[in-house]
Amino acid sequence: MTQWMKALSLSKPVIQAPMAGGLVTPRLAAAVSNEGALGSLASGYLSPGTLEKQIIEMQELTSSAFQVNVFVPEKRKTPDDKTVHTWKKNIPFAEQAAAFPLEEEEWEDFHQKINLILTYNVRACSFTFGIPPDESIHLLKKNGCCLIGTATSPQEAVLLEERGMDIIVLQGSEAGGHRGSFLPVSGESSIGLMSLIPQAADAVSVPVIAAGGIADRRGVQAAHFLGAQGVQVGTPFLMCEESEASETYRQELKEAHGTDTRLTALFSGKPARGIVNQWMKEQQAEEANTLPYPLQNTLTKPMRKHAAAAKDSGHMSLWAGQSVGMLNGPADVKTLIAELCQS
Amino acid sequence: MTQWMKALSLSKPVIQAPMAGGLVTPRLAAAVSNEGALGSLASGYLSPGTLEKQIIEMQELTSSAFQVNVFVPEKRKTPDDKTVHTWKKNIPFAEQAAAFPLEEEEWEDFHQKINLILTYNVRACSFTFGIPPDESIHLLKKNGCCLIGTATSPQEAVLLEERGMDIIVLQGSEAGGHRGSFLPVSGESSIGLMSLIPQAADAVSVPVIAAGGIADRRGVQAAHFLGAQGVQVGTPFLMCEESEASETYRQELKEAHGTDTRLTALFSGKPARGIVNQWMKEQQAEEANTLPYPLQNTLTKPMRKHAAAAKDSGHMSLWAGQSVGMLNGPADVKTLIAELCQS
Repeated sequence: MTQWMKALSLSKPVIQAPMAGGLVTPRLAAAVSNEGALGSLASGYLSPGTLEKQIIEMQELTSSAFQVNVFVPEKRKTPDDKTVHTWKKNIPFAEQAAAFPLEEEEWEDFHQKINLILTYNVRACSFTFGIPPDESIHLLKKNGCCLIGTATSPQEAVLLEERGMDIIVLQGSEAGGHRGSFLPVSGESSIGLMSLIPQAADAVSVPVIAAGGIADRRGVQAAHFLGAQGVQVGTPFLMCEESEASETYRQELKEAHGTDTRLTALFSGKPARGIVNQWMKEQQAEEANTLPYPLQNTLTKPMRKHAAAAKDSGHMSLWAGQSVGMLNGPADVKTLIAELCQS
Repeated sequence: MTQWMKALSLSKPVIQAPMAGGLVTPRLAAAVSNEGALGSLASGYLSPGTLEKQIIEMQELTSSAFQVNVFVPEKRKTPDDKTVHTWKKNIPFAEQAAAFPLEEEEWEDFHQKINLILTYNVRACSFTFGIPPDESIHLLKKNGCCLIGTATSPQEAVLLEERGMDIIVLQGSEAGGHRGSFLPVSGESSIGLMSLIPQAADAVSVPVIAAGGIADRRGVQAAHFLGAQGVQVGTPFLMCEESEASETYRQELKEAHGTDTRLTALFSGKPARGIVNQWMKEQQAEEANTLPYPLQNTLTKPMRKHAAAAKDSGHMSLWAGQSVGMLNGPADVKTLIAELCQS
């Protein structure tokens, strides 16, 4: 057993990916923690009030460690009115969208969530989309909270270690959902785990965890040999009976092949990997013109909500990793974790 | 030792990637074969006459098995005159380019190369960009030649097995150089090896070999656990003293990070992974408008030749995989293969 597992009293080197958007509730995350792996609440799209309720529920369902994932707000450019107007016209139901959040509101939300993590003594906190402010890092560390950063390149991993992260999740290009990249690159910020793990493991001294395309014990073992001390698994948890993924979404996950996904910024303004659907096909030429995150997300929210209610997979975000073709269908958290860890 | 290695009398489960464009000569390929791995001649851009000379030289330098890689010609659309004219204007030195090859000339070239492989009893033949005609498969098999197909998805792997390939190289998204994809997909045809190997290994019964981003023993072991019976390694061989990579190219390989590469069709008309340089930056907006392969390749050839002579890395094709950041600099074939295979 490695040091990071001891620190969090884990018996399995597995983190359940913090998948935002209502897919993961305390029921699933607690089931993960109760198996000796690390369950994760995804606070990204939750209000601080809802996050507080989830933390309380989580602590009722498990006495084991779990983490809360928090999105780090970013500086963003103000989009020009014409682009905003065009998207408002082109995105179905965009007229029902809420007002765009201000950057200062995003930071207010961030700090409220950090305060909840401190108040409830949550054992671990992970960050996506960047590096949190030094002050937050300092407060969390003082409280004994284990800090987990998300890197998509060796350079991001080095920076996260320098700024105080205790563990670094390496997100490979295979991963479903949003890319966590935060440093500019001259080429692609999506590196396959076969290349990313050894390069990042050589560059930092904290433990690295492999995320992306890991769906059974083969991936867990391969990640280990590449230099990872554990794995983070996402898409396969969506097929578990404890997940909140809709039947429509599950059906798409079941039928999709690995070549059916691509990165798109059309839903949120940030690149994320999902199964290609009608909305992505229709708007493909507009990929380069999306509004910055989270503005595009705000405008597509009503469309996604209506699509979910209408069981219309053509206008939902169908996040999935490249191992989507090897999901074996219904299982539960216990079975999945046993499969991942069998030797 | 596995069956495919026995069939080719190999002692190392390693194939040297057939990197076209004058990077690999018989000297390097024979050094690989003499170490018990599979050396490869890349016939893609060679005339049949030059290939014949290389095969003869190869057989003088090694008595061990080697392969010849052949590009499978494709049906292509005739580009409109305006697009051709624009590229002729925009590509430096394009006025010095040869005439576009006809499809029937490409097939003539293909069949002449197959005949050489038969005449000289070459032990293995690999194909890129698709499936060769049944007649060629039949002739090669009758001659006892081991057939190696290149797949970028489980579906391509299945098709290659059905059509008679004895071994399938799985090209992960990490790989440098040209993508071997030949089936249309709804999403991305670039899948990371962490996802590709187990899905393809489950889908076929012939041995699969992992290619892309494998640069040391960690990758070899990981590929093995994912279900591959061997690895194909490319970029690291370019740094060996036996390779024909220029000093300018080697310097770029040495300095590049994994995030410095991206896929581009700007050099040849087909997507290939290389280090982002001046030409790729300047023409990025034109990615979708390149001429079909090999026409774009014909037009950029004089530019690349002039750039090589002028040591101008801004206009050369700097093919590299995503593990380019972990190349340790000068070595030789013997040292590299020993490093890959040390347990």
